[in-house]
Amino acid sequence: MGELRVRDVSEAELLRRILRVLGPLSRAEVGPGDDATVLAVPGGRVVATTDTLVHGPDFRLAWTSPRDLGYKAAAVNLADVAAMGARPTALLVALALPDSLPAAFVDDLATGFRDALDELAPGCAVEGGDLTVSDTLTVAVTALGVLDGVSPVLRSGARPGDDVAVAGGLGAAARGLRLLFTRFRDDEGRPVAVDLAVLTEQERRDLSAQLRPQPPVRLGLAAARAGATALMDVSDGLVLDATRLADASEVTLLIEADLEDDALSGGEDHALLACFPAGTAPAGFTVIGRVAQRREVPVLIRGVAPDGRGGWDPYSDWDAVLG
Amino acid sequence: MGELRVRDVSEAELLRRILRVLGPLSRAEVGPGDDATVLAVPGGRVVATTDTLVHGPDFRLAWTSPRDLGYKAAAVNLADVAAMGARPTALLVALALPDSLPAAFVDDLATGFRDALDELAPGCAVEGGDLTVSDTLTVAVTALGVLDGVSPVLRSGARPGDDVAVAGGLGAAARGLRLLFTRFRDDEGRPVAVDLAVLTEQERRDLSAQLRPQPPVRLGLAAARAGATALMDVSDGLVLDATRLADASEVTLLIEADLEDDALSGGEDHALLACFPAGTAPAGFTVIGRVAQRREVPVLIRGVAPDGRGGWDPYSDWDAVLG
Repeated sequence: MGELRVRDVSEAELLRRILRVLGPLSRAEVGPGDDATVLAVPGGRVVATTDTLVHGPDFRLAWTSPRDLGYKAAAVNLADVAAMGARPTALLVALALPDSLPAAFVDDLATGFRDALDELAPGCAVEGGDLTVSDTLTVAVTALGVLDGVSPVLRSGARPGDDVAVAGGLGAAARGLRLLFTRFRDDEGRPVAVDLAVLTEQERRDLSAQLRPQPPVRLGLAAARAGATALMDVSDGLVLDATRLADASEVTLLIEADLEDDALSGGEDHALLACFPAGTAPAGFTVIGRVAQRREVPVLIRGVAPDGRGGWDPYSDWDAVLG
Repeated sequence: MGELRVRDVSEAELLRRILRVLGPLSRAEVGPGDDATVLAVPGGRVVATTDTLVHGPDFRLAWTSPRDLGYKAAAVNLADVAAMGARPTALLVALALPDSLPAAFVDDLATGFRDALDELAPGCAVEGGDLTVSDTLTVAVTALGVLDGVSPVLRSGARPGDDVAVAGGLGAAARGLRLLFTRFRDDEGRPVAVDLAVLTEQERRDLSAQLRPQPPVRLGLAAARAGATALMDVSDGLVLDATRLADASEVTLLIEADLEDDALSGGEDHALLACFPAGTAPAGFTVIGRVAQRREVPVLIRGVAPDGRGGWDPYSDWDAVLG
């Protein structure tokens, strides 16, 4: 086979391929190409977060295209910036690539990053990164953002009487993951390529939510401007993340909306969970409950304490065999 | 064996262990624990860089202690911030850990980060990060810094007539790597534990330069304040990095100092290469040559064009068998 592999090209050539896709987006004072990036930070404060996708626990190439992988790696980091009430301005992308990977893989990966930036965070660009080799394909992203005249919205500011609201979908990403595990593995449990033809419209949407999540990035700043008292990214399941918000704010969240199990405990939604003074949730958010004085438990679902942990922990839950 | 492994503890517990070591250093407006970090950026500009260490190509646990690994992961990123003329203020650390790793490993790794921050960049702290599992131990670090009233110093500003100077050691890290490859492998080429008792004092210093590099981080800002026209981190060998600076500045660097081969082509020194108006290099820098009008070649070593590429490329040079 004459296909060009990562081991056949120099780091400089690989970087050129990536910057051909991503470089023109740069708005940094100093973009990719020097020792570090220099970004203007108009408000004098920068928001920074990092999240890594690792082949195996976080994605499988049999199920995920490089373009979707780039999209998701960008999206999950943009969601964390949005969850502070900030506007994302730059990504740094560290790629650790098996040397047997086709060199064209990085073009598609970069295109996925570009798709996500165009759709979810126009004005944000990949402004730096790192290339190295690894036996395990790893995409480590850092996202930076600015607070456009607002204060950061933490998890700790919810007050009794506030509305509890969400923006973005809940549960679809978990259903999509279940589809992959139940419908696209061979007899030995190994992942096999997805055949969209065998899926219903709803199943395709669920799969897309898993592989190419669409966090409501712009609504982070909108929530901050509307006076959100608390805000966070829902990435480990609503119950678990609502518990974190309730604990940080020393309140109890009373969830009254009729939500199915996947919405309550499914992970990777990258929806926004916010609290607002009663009646002030802005467009894009759906009120699902209210904030009460701290009770014995941090969260009640229609009056009932959820059982189990109801979320995903990469260290306790990851099984190298079952994936 | 009753040793606690990463798979035996929750993500939250692992994070608590890390923050027990690193947390007290935080100076961020919002430190670890929310969706993202919020940092004050007094000058309205932030410097950002990312560099990843991967088990296999970048380090071997047989040779490197977790404490040295943390130190090196911090140091190489701090060096890139310094190479812009900036002062490092925060690190974000993304750890991808095999689940069989002892949980105590992360304590030692965090201690290494703390050592490096204390020694190389007081005032800088780990302000955020990410934890995930991976078959390949990977430490992906992002460093952020501020420009204390100076402009960033790029690779592109060197002018004919400038002095060429370096700060920090050249060649020792490459000698240290060669020691590991020649003295601490078994008959099948597998790494075996280092026995310091068999090494001379000089060899121990070389090994330390490889495993626990000491980039002159403070001298980055000092160079900027002294009026450096160009500045960069020497991480891939002096000849290769000097070529990059010469190409970016469209000049030729005439290196006149008597440097041995390791100093010219060895990698991972993390020294600073700078150009200053003649006679103005500040304390800590040694003048090794001068900048000339662009000639046929970008770099001349005592009048001779270096042969070969003279540096390290992770994609072309990495050999999974030989390491």
